[in-house]
Amino acid sequence: MRCEVVAIGTELLLGQIVDTNSSWIGEQLALSGIDSMLQTKVGDNIDRMVAAISAAISRADAVICCGGLGPTQDDMTRTALAQVMGVELLMDDDRADIIRWMFRGRDRSMPDSNLLQAMAPQGASFLDTQPGTAPGLRCPITVDGVEKVIYAVPGVPWEMQEMMTAEILPELRERGGKASVIRSRTLRTWGESESRLGEMLAERIVELDESGTSTLAFLASGIEGLKVRITAKADSDVEADQILAQEERLVRSIIGEHLIFGVDEDTMESVVLDLCRRRGLTLAVAESLTGGLMASRLCDVPGASSVFRGGVVSYASSVKFDVLGVDEGPVVSEEAARQMAVGVRAAIGADVGVATTGVAGPDEQEGRPVGTVCVAVSVGDAAPVSMELRLPGRRRQVREFACITALSLLRQELISSAAE
Amino acid sequence: MRCEVVAIGTELLLGQIVDTNSSWIGEQLALSGIDSMLQTKVGDNIDRMVAAISAAISRADAVICCGGLGPTQDDMTRTALAQVMGVELLMDDDRADIIRWMFRGRDRSMPDSNLLQAMAPQGASFLDTQPGTAPGLRCPITVDGVEKVIYAVPGVPWEMQEMMTAEILPELRERGGKASVIRSRTLRTWGESESRLGEMLAERIVELDESGTSTLAFLASGIEGLKVRITAKADSDVEADQILAQEERLVRSIIGEHLIFGVDEDTMESVVLDLCRRRGLTLAVAESLTGGLMASRLCDVPGASSVFRGGVVSYASSVKFDVLGVDEGPVVSEEAARQMAVGVRAAIGADVGVATTGVAGPDEQEGRPVGTVCVAVSVGDAAPVSMELRLPGRRRQVREFACITALSLLRQELISSAAE
Repeated sequence: MRCEVVAIGTELLLGQIVDTNSSWIGEQLALSGIDSMLQTKVGDNIDRMVAAISAAISRADAVICCGGLGPTQDDMTRTALAQVMGVELLMDDDRADIIRWMFRGRDRSMPDSNLLQAMAPQGASFLDTQPGTAPGLRCPITVDGVEKVIYAVPGVPWEMQEMMTAEILPELRERGGKASVIRSRTLRTWGESESRLGEMLAERIVELDESGTSTLAFLASGIEGLKVRITAKADSDVEADQILAQEERLVRSIIGEHLIFGVDEDTMESVVLDLCRRRGLTLAVAESLTGGLMASRLCDVPGASSVFRGGVVSYASSVKFDVLGVDEGPVVSEEAARQMAVGVRAAIGADVGVATTGVAGPDEQEGRPVGTVCVAVSVGDAAPVSMELRLPGRRRQVREFACITALSLLRQELISSAAE
Repeated sequence: MRCEVVAIGTELLLGQIVDTNSSWIGEQLALSGIDSMLQTKVGDNIDRMVAAISAAISRADAVICCGGLGPTQDDMTRTALAQVMGVELLMDDDRADIIRWMFRGRDRSMPDSNLLQAMAPQGASFLDTQPGTAPGLRCPITVDGVEKVIYAVPGVPWEMQEMMTAEILPELRERGGKASVIRSRTLRTWGESESRLGEMLAERIVELDESGTSTLAFLASGIEGLKVRITAKADSDVEADQILAQEERLVRSIIGEHLIFGVDEDTMESVVLDLCRRRGLTLAVAESLTGGLMASRLCDVPGASSVFRGGVVSYASSVKFDVLGVDEGPVVSEEAARQMAVGVRAAIGADVGVATTGVAGPDEQEGRPVGTVCVAVSVGDAAPVSMELRLPGRRRQVREFACITALSLLRQELISSAAE
């Protein structure tokens, strides 16, 4: 069972919107054991849309077209599908009523253009799931005597996701018969280069290429470290999970536990919150150059409120002096960072403090160049610890790197102070 | 001049990394007047890589392959290119020396696997620009008697971007001869539905379809509002800019200035900072459910430090009472939001305060359901203003929507208070 994805929209080709939908669909297909070997982006041009969809359905058993189902004139997916199928585009009165009814339910008047969304190629059916005003389509098509199917879903992510989950994925799984299961597990590492990890695991990768029960790959996730991804293909969920567990143990023994800070959806901040939670510690942050980024990432973790109490964004130097009790003087220093980490614990009332200060750019500060960053951590009664870094890159990268470095230092301190 | 993009990596198909590189390349090609009509994602499989690259170069004049140039065994772009060209893969001793030298410069030892990166298909040349350890490749190829070119760049975004800017884009522009220029301008709107904007502009879109000097399109950018994109194609930068300026005036007169908060790279936060800067006002934020997101977005704007002084992340209720002077009692209320906006001005020392409080989920709070959000703004001597919202969506969406709503309220207050 092979399924290709065609993402539609000139804005995707022009880079004005990043195509996250194809990524999500690819992930869901893989978890359903459906092979997705090619994904295409094409603009809002009827001829090129028809060519791309036709090419995709000639290679694959199913195609998912994403986008171009809106009510405006540059939404041409319905027309393109009718051409690919070689049929007419017809108005569906029932669906038109549903769309009118949805607008009434929201107490909004319906622009006539929304009725375009009630049109479908002859022989196609509407999906039952319709979270927004754009209906999804299921288009049966016979190619070289083989019965295939093309789905069309809106480009609005949550509308697309609801249709995929409720109808399209179950239908594709059924169509594929007893599909094999593909499962991935990702070990998240921080502090080692891709080539070094590659050397460590080279032998095992060759063994796996020969045995074929699973594969190993590296994903550089930029500032967030390197991921080692284990992928297993098996006949059942249970069997796939067994292969993953076994391979994970092996990989951990090869590259060492200290480099691995988390698994799959773990982030440095979720790991740090867990470490605090287990020891009943509350957390506060003092941020200068990261400017709320660290707090925001911590708050993004559901359940953060049992650990995270808040923080002070001390962007201006006077806020560091007046609110956090930092000694007046240079603020891009390890000493200032340590005083911020201690000071924010007092200001907010927390057991653990973590702080960042430095020069994000575009201009230097206190004679220190852009990229100079100091981070510090204060845990319980122990003396605060700190480090200074010289980071490459632009404003956002410097801020993000400062953020994960501070959280990583906090992780190390929480682990080592627990061991004492 | 047509150029396709082939993004390489199983992690892209499995959705473990979102392909932002193709988006960036697409944008740059458009700005150089080079048509990019199809983009493909393919996994780390040699046969499918060869098929995808061969198909792309058969359709286009040039192809940019992105990814698969690393030092590990799943990096197979070099091998695939040699097969597409029908030549051998050879070691380049000079390039091997360069790679060794780069590792020495960083005071790191070089794993042998990095030498794989010094191999190139016979007849190909290395790009001079090499910001990382992965060299880029320029592969001339003749297809059906036509001389074409395939470039290979690493998947690390900043390495890819440096090679594109320094060598590939200039070469493609030269190869394309006097290329026409494509320019886009995006008007950013907030507060109106896509179909309503579509109806307003329908007539103009039809006119443009007939005249052909420019096009209009809508980009739904989720929580950040709707974008109206004007695209002009012309023989010169000057002419393209003239068409854009003229069309922008027309669009503004049709949909009304009040809906348009910015242009192109403007964000709600950059606009708010500009409004403050022009009036010499300093800004502080008090954040509960947004937890630093608003501060972080403000700090992401270069030059924010002349306006933004800092803020308090008052995630725990006691921080609202103790640090911001909010009356003890319910904290999910407009009254609490107003007290936060006033309180943070005093705590941080600023002319303007903006505040968010509410229930991001997963659980309800004070009997208020998830999605209940109160935002408030305090400007100068005026009484603080506030509003309560009931937002749909999940944790992150609620937080992001609360953030832009608070900033939008601030924008309105700054505009109306300046008018008084």
